[in-house]
Amino acid sequence: VLVSPVSIDDVFAALTDLRARRPLVHNITNYVAMSVSANVLLALGASPAMVHAVEEVEDFVAISDALAVNIGTLSPPWVEAMHKAVARANALGKPWVLDPVGCGATPYRTQAAVELAGLKPAVIRGNAGEILSLAGQTGANEGKSKGVDSTAKAGDAVAAASSLAKRTGAVVAVTGAVDYVCDGQSQTAIETGHALMPLSTALGCSLSAETAAFTAVRPPREAAIAALAVFGAAGAAAGQKLSGPGHLPAEICDALYAMDRTTLARFVKFRS
Amino acid sequence: VLVSPVSIDDVFAALTDLRARRPLVHNITNYVAMSVSANVLLALGASPAMVHAVEEVEDFVAISDALAVNIGTLSPPWVEAMHKAVARANALGKPWVLDPVGCGATPYRTQAAVELAGLKPAVIRGNAGEILSLAGQTGANEGKSKGVDSTAKAGDAVAAASSLAKRTGAVVAVTGAVDYVCDGQSQTAIETGHALMPLSTALGCSLSAETAAFTAVRPPREAAIAALAVFGAAGAAAGQKLSGPGHLPAEICDALYAMDRTTLARFVKFRS
Amino acid sequence: VLVSPVSIDDVFAALTDLRARRPLVHNITNYVAMSVSANVLLALGASPAMVHAVEEVEDFVAISDALAVNIGTLSPPWVEAMHKAVARANALGKPWVLDPVGCGATPYRTQAAVELAGLKPAVIRGNAGEILSLAGQTGANEGKSKGVDSTAKAGDAVAAASSLAKRTGAVVAVTGAVDYVCDGQSQTAIETGHALMPLSTALGCSLSAETAAFTAVRPPREAAIAALAVFGAAGAAAGQKLSGPGHLPAEICDALYAMDRTTLARFVKFRS
Repeated sequence: VLVSPVSIDDVFAALTDLRARRPLVHNITNYVAMSVSANVLLALGASPAMVHAVEEVEDFVAISDALAVNIGTLSPPWVEAMHKAVARANALGKPWVLDPVGCGATPYRTQAAVELAGLKPAVIRGNAGEILSLAGQTGANEGKSKGVDSTAKAGDAVAAASSLAKRTGAVVAVTGAVDYVCDGQSQTAIETGHALMPLSTALGCSLSAETAAFTAVRPPREAAIAALAVFGAAGAAAGQKLSGPGHLPAEICDALYAMDRTTLARFVKFRS
Repeated sequence: VLVSPVSIDDVFAALTDLRARRPLVHNITNYVAMSVSANVLLALGASPAMVHAVEEVEDFVAISDALAVNIGTLSPPWVEAMHKAVARANALGKPWVLDPVGCGATPYRTQAAVELAGLKPAVIRGNAGEILSLAGQTGANEGKSKGVDSTAKAGDAVAAASSLAKRTGAVVAVTGAVDYVCDGQSQTAIETGHALMPLSTALGCSLSAETAAFTAVRPPREAAIAALAVFGAAGAAAGQKLSGPGHLPAEICDALYAMDRTTLARFVKFRS
Repeated sequence: VLVSPVSIDDVFAALTDLRARRPLVHNITNYVAMSVSANVLLALGASPAMVHAVEEVEDFVAISDALAVNIGTLSPPWVEAMHKAVARANALGKPWVLDPVGCGATPYRTQAAVELAGLKPAVIRGNAGEILSLAGQTGANEGKSKGVDSTAKAGDAVAAASSLAKRTGAVVAVTGAVDYVCDGQSQTAIETGHALMPLSTALGCSLSAETAAFTAVRPPREAAIAALAVFGAAGAAAGQKLSGPGHLPAEICDALYAMDRTTLARFVKFRS
C-alpha cells in the first residue's frame, strides 16, 4: 500500500487557509450534535448553519462552501432533504461529507447510509462498526457495533475502508484510538486524540462537520487528514487537562480556537 | 406503609453491574434533553442512542437493553414512534421508562402521557406537578405546575404516586428536594441532590434516561432507587463545587464518571 | 432623533421584577438553541418551556407569560405552529418576540420572517444582516450576511431598524459589537458584551428568549433595553474570565444568576 507523505506543516497551512476563508458550512445533522458541531465549527474558524427543510436546502447549499450530512437522528423528511442538498452540491461542484451514524444498527439506517454513500461524497467519516457495515463487511447486529458506538477497532476496518473508497470514489476516514484515512490507493494512520473522547457525545459528528469545513480549502484526502489531525490534537490537549468527560466539549473548543503549529506537532503523529 | 430496606451497598452494586454490562439505552426524548442525556449516560457507563423514526424504532428496541420515553417536545410522529417502540419493548420483555414532561400543561400533553402510562412502563419518573396530573389528582392549569416546572413539592405527590403505581403496575418516582420511589406497597424517600439542580435544564430528563439504564440491570424498584441515589449524589457532589448553575451538567457528568461508594454514602440518605 | 433616557437603575429594577414574577416563557425555537436558551432563562430567573406541536401551542400560550419565536431551523409544521401560537398570543394580549434567524439567506426563510414580522411582535431581535434583509434593504445573497452570521455592523442597520419599527409597530433590536434598540421615534445604543460572544452558537437566540422574558414585566422598548443590557453585561463578565469560547455559555449562565446592579454599571454603557 502506497502512503503519500503528509506533514504537520501541511495541516497547519490548511488550518490557516480555513481561518482566512471562514467557510460557510451547511449542516444537515442530528439533533444531538447540532449545538456542539456549531461550536466546534465556530471555534475552528468556520461559519456554521443548520438548515434541513426541503423548501430551502438547495438554496442554502448554493451559498455555502461545503455540506455535512449526518444521519444520526434520521427520518423520511430529513433523508429527502439530504438527497436534495447533495444533488445540488454535486451539481454546483461543492464538496460534501457523509457521517453514516449507526450504519448497521437497523435496516432503515443502513439503507439510508448506503444510498447516500453512492452519491459521490468527498469524504465518508465513521467509526469502525459503521464503516464495516457500510462497506458490506457486516450485516446488522453482527457484533461490530452497539447502537451508535463501535465495538470494533479502527484498524480492523482499514481494508473495508479502502474497498469502500474504491467503490464510491470517496476518501474514507475511520476514527478510533488510531484514525485512518484511505483513498483507495493510500492509507494514512494518525495517532492523536484522548481516551475520554468516546465518553462525550457527538464528538465524532463534530469531527465530520469539521471535515466538511476543511473540504472548502483542500482536496478530500488532505482535508480529511487535516480535520482528523486538528480535532485529535484539540482532543488530546483538552483531555490532558481533565479528569472526566464533562468539560471536554468546551475544552476542545478552546483548544481549536488556540490551535497552533506547536500543539499540532506535540499531539499528532502520522504513521505509514 | 411498608418500607423495604435499601442500602448504599445495594446502589453501588447496581452501578458496578451497570458499568460492567454497559447497556445500550434507546431514547425517544425531547430536543432539549438529547445532548445532556447522552452525556449523562456515557459518563454513567451506558451506551446511549437517540432514535425516533417510526421506520426504525422497533428494530432499534430489539438491539437495546432498555428504552426511555420522554414527551418533552412531543408531536404526532414522535408519539406514534413512542407507541411502536413501547409495544415492541413489551413484546420482547425489555423494560422501559416514561418521563411525562409537562403533564397537565395542555390537554394534548396530558392525553399522551396518560395513554403511555397505561402501556406498562417499568418506571414513571416525574416532578410533583406531573405525577399529580398523571394520577388524575389535578386537571390542567390548577396551579400545581408552571409549564414544565412544578410548583408542588414531591412530598405532596406521594399519595398520588402510590395510587398511580397501583393502577399502572409501574414503579413511580417523584423527584424534588426530596425524592420518593413508590411501588404500590412501599415508599422510599431519598434525600440527596442540590438546590442548583432545578436551574439547569433537562436534568430531570437525564435522570429518567439514567433510570432506564438501571432497569437493564435491576428490577424496577431497585433500578429507580439506584438511579435517584446515583444522580442525586452526582448533583450534590457537583453542586457543592459551584456558585452558579452554568457548569452543573458538566460537573454532574464528571461526578457520575468518578462515582464511588464513598461519595454515595456521603451524599445520599434513605428515609422510611 | 429623540432618545428617551434609560438608566442602569431601570434595568436592574426590571430584572428584580422578572425574578419576582418568574415568568413562564413559551419558546418555539431552533434545535441548536433550545438547550442554551432554556439554561439562560433559568439562570435569569424565568421558567422556560419548548413546545412546538400545532396540537398544543395555542393551549400553551394561554398559560404562558410571553412567547419567543425563532426561525433558526424552520420547516412547514413549525411555521404553522408559530402562526397559531402568535395568533393566540395576540388574541390574549400576550407579548411575543421574533428572532428572524438567517433572514435573507434563502427565499423560504425570508418569506417566513417577513410574514411573522407582520403579525405584531412586541420586539424583533436580529443581527445587522437579518434586520437589513427583513427591512427590505437587501435581497438574499447581497453580501450582508453569511448564512446565519452577519457581515454588516449593527450600526449600519439602524436606519433599516427604525424603518422596520415604524412599519411593523415592533421595537427592533439590532445586536452586534454595539447594540441598538429602535422604536420608530427613538434609538438607544448599548455598549456592552464581549468579542468572544459571536464564537459561541445560539447566544443571539438566547438573547431573544431572554427578551421575551422581559416583555412579561416591561413594555417592549424597556424590555428590549433591559434584555440587551443584562445579557451583554453577563457576556462581558463571563468573557473577561476566559481565553476561548468553550465555556462561555456556562459562564454567561453563572453571570446571569449572579447579576447585580454593580455588574450592570460596570459593563453597560448607554449612548445617545
